[in-house]
This record gives sequence, C-alpha cells and structure tokens, in this order.
Amino acid sequence: MNGRFISLEGGEGTGKSTQAKALSAALQAKGLTVQLTREPGGTPGAETIRDLLLSGRDDKWNMRTEALLFAAARAEHCQELIQPALARGEWIISDRFIDSSRAYQSIDGQLNDHDIMALHHVGSGNLMPHRTFILDLPEEIAARRAEARDRGDSDRIGGRNSSYHQAVMAKFRQYAENEPDRVKLVDASQSPNEITEILLQNLADLLN
Amino acid sequence: MNGRFISLEGGEGTGKSTQAKALSAALQAKGLTVQLTREPGGTPGAETIRDLLLSGRDDKWNMRTEALLFAAARAEHCQELIQPALARGEWIISDRFIDSSRAYQSIDGQLNDHDIMALHHVGSGNLMPHRTFILDLPEEIAARRAEARDRGDSDRIGGRNSSYHQAVMAKFRQYAENEPDRVKLVDASQSPNEITEILLQNLADLLN
Repeated sequence: MNGRFISLEGGEGTGKSTQAKALSAALQAKGLTVQLTREPGGTPGAETIRDLLLSGRDDKWNMRTEALLFAAARAEHCQELIQPALARGEWIISDRFIDSSRAYQSIDGQLNDHDIMALHHVGSGNLMPHRTFILDLPEEIAARRAEARDRGDSDRIGGRNSSYHQAVMAKFRQYAENEPDRVKLVDASQSPNEITEILLQNLADLLN
Repeated sequence: MNGRFISLEGGEGTGKSTQAKALSAALQAKGLTVQLTREPGGTPGAETIRDLLLSGRDDKWNMRTEALLFAAARAEHCQELIQPALARGEWIISDRFIDSSRAYQSIDGQLNDHDIMALHHVGSGNLMPHRTFILDLPEEIAARRAEARDRGDSDRIGGRNSSYHQAVMAKFRQYAENEPDRVKLVDASQSPNEITEILLQNLADLLN
C-alpha cells in the first residue's frame, strides 16, 4: 500500500510544529512508520536552501527568486525524501508544504496561484498531500503572537508585518473552502491535546 | 532608447569569458555603457546561489532542483541587474543565460524545453537576449579541452562526461537553427581577435 502524506499549515506560532510532533507520535503508537519533516528543508540539500531563504533582511530576495528557491527546496524534499517514503508505504507529516508557497509568495501581486503551481509542476510533478490541516487562530491571539515576533525571535519571512500575515491567513482559509476534501481548517485556540485528537479523528478515512 | 542584451553560450573552454570581455571593451570603445556579467551569478544574491550550484559532487542536486536553482539565480540577475540596466539604455554582455539552462538541464530527460521556459516565464518574465552567440568548437578540440577538465580544474557541471557535453552542443546548434535571427553559431577554433571581429560585425544591426 502507498503511504499517506499529511501537511500542517498556518501562520507562525499557531502550533504547527507541536502538532506535527504529536500527530507523528500518535500514528507511530498505532504501529505506523512515520517520517516527521518540514519545509523549507527536510533533506541536507534543502536545508542549505532554507538557510538562504530564512536568514538576512526581508528584502534579500525579490519575490520571484524567493518562490523559485522554495520550489527548489521542495523539489529536493519530494524526490529525495517524500516520494521514496510514500513508495515504501510510510506516512509523512510535514510542517508546511505547497500551500505555504501558494499563500506567502502570492501576496505582493507579482506572482499568482497559477505561477506557484507551475513551479510545483516542474519541480515536484504536482505532488499534493492527502490531507492538509490549516491551524487557524482568531485575529486577537495571532496579533499577540505577532508582538512576540516583533521582539526578534522570528525569521526573515515570519518577521513581515501583520497585514501580510493576515492576508496569508485569508488565503489559507480560501484553500479550505475551495478544496474541502483535502484542506481542513482547525481552530488552533484549543488545547494542544484537543487539537491532536481532532486531527486524528479527521484522518480516520486515511487510516483504513 | 532601451539597451541591448547579448549573451554568449557554448561548452566549457570555448572562450566565452574571453570573448565577453573583448566584446565589452570593443563596445565601450564605441562610447557605449556596457555591463559585463555572467550566469549563474551577476548579483551578490545570485552568486551565493552559484556557489550552491557549482560546488560539491555531481549528484548533489537532482536535475529538477538544479533547474529551479538556476532559474532562481536568473530571476535575481534579471530583476536586480539586467532589466534596470536595459531600462537605462545600457548594453549587457552576459557569459551564459537562458540557453544554457535549456541545453544543460534538459539532457537527462526529466525536464523538457517547455519546463525550462515555464520556469523562465515565472522567474524572469521570459526575458530573452537580443542576440546570442554560440561559440562552437570542432569535436576533437572540445575533446582535448575535456581532458583538461578531467584533470580537476572544472566545476560540478563542467565535470560531467563528454557525451553529456556533446549532447549540450547538439542542443545549442539546434537553437541556432530554430531561431536564426537571435542565435548565431560562431566557429570558436579561430583566433580570439578574429572571433571578436565576427561578433562585432554581427551586431551592426543592433548598433544603429
């Protein structure tokens, strides 16, 4: 049997990494082989591209270059890690995937969704997750966490201003509306254990 | 008046860099403002991507990642250096450009010309040179220079085997056949001065 590919998406500080770990542990407890990974990165080569992307000043790359670098890291990640694992019947849990590129790199208007998907087609043969969870936080909590970002514990992209991040969340919510079978919106203001339980329940159809 | 954009293409050791410099000097002697540049690279950001691309083992990147990294460096080069210079009416002489990506990254059959051009569309709005010179060497001279490459003074891509480089040259010759107005094949076995003179004569229509 082919494996299953799950991605977690959402803004900074919504608990994606925590949930990726918890979900991974819960699936392993069911006897499944699970690989926990992240984007950009996930392989040694892709992690060197991650360093180029997330360090330095906000204006270090123009948006087209940024989109191509994300697609390059993803191509490496898909071909070296994700596709071989799926072919072995394993589960992949990835902290971010293509929907982050669609949301973050289409905000400034230079590129549209068609452009981002064209890069994904050439780079990774349009590989899509079987299920994507968007961790969604109410504006006021997101704004409070954005303040934490402003104290300097954020990376080059996470450090962009709050109207950018609001526009990103609006895109994510739109994907959940457009692709309801694949993309599920999850209220991220609940406790971590409650959220993990919701994710697991939602994966019931993929577990059979 | 908008500027002019000239690219030089061909295998390693065909004299591209020498000709790029000589052509640049000859055009400056005519009173033109000329920027001499190269790919991958040409801007500080693109040069960091060049380092990722040209160092390390031949199998460091899969071909899709390699194509995306070249396109990322090119996007940076076009938007930060080439397009602003053209808008100021300057001449750009680039040691390699899109035709190298078309030739080198389509050899192994994973990607075709349409894929490479799709990346160029998203990354650089399909910007094409006004004229492209392919420096073409007879097989036996190319083979002799390939031996020099095998002694270790070559980079990650230049170090690939000679059937790869022959396939690349066949692609270049095909572009000259398909786009005779833009792409000119030049016999690179002549003396450097003779070659520069041929290039200059060929640019007469762009100099008016």
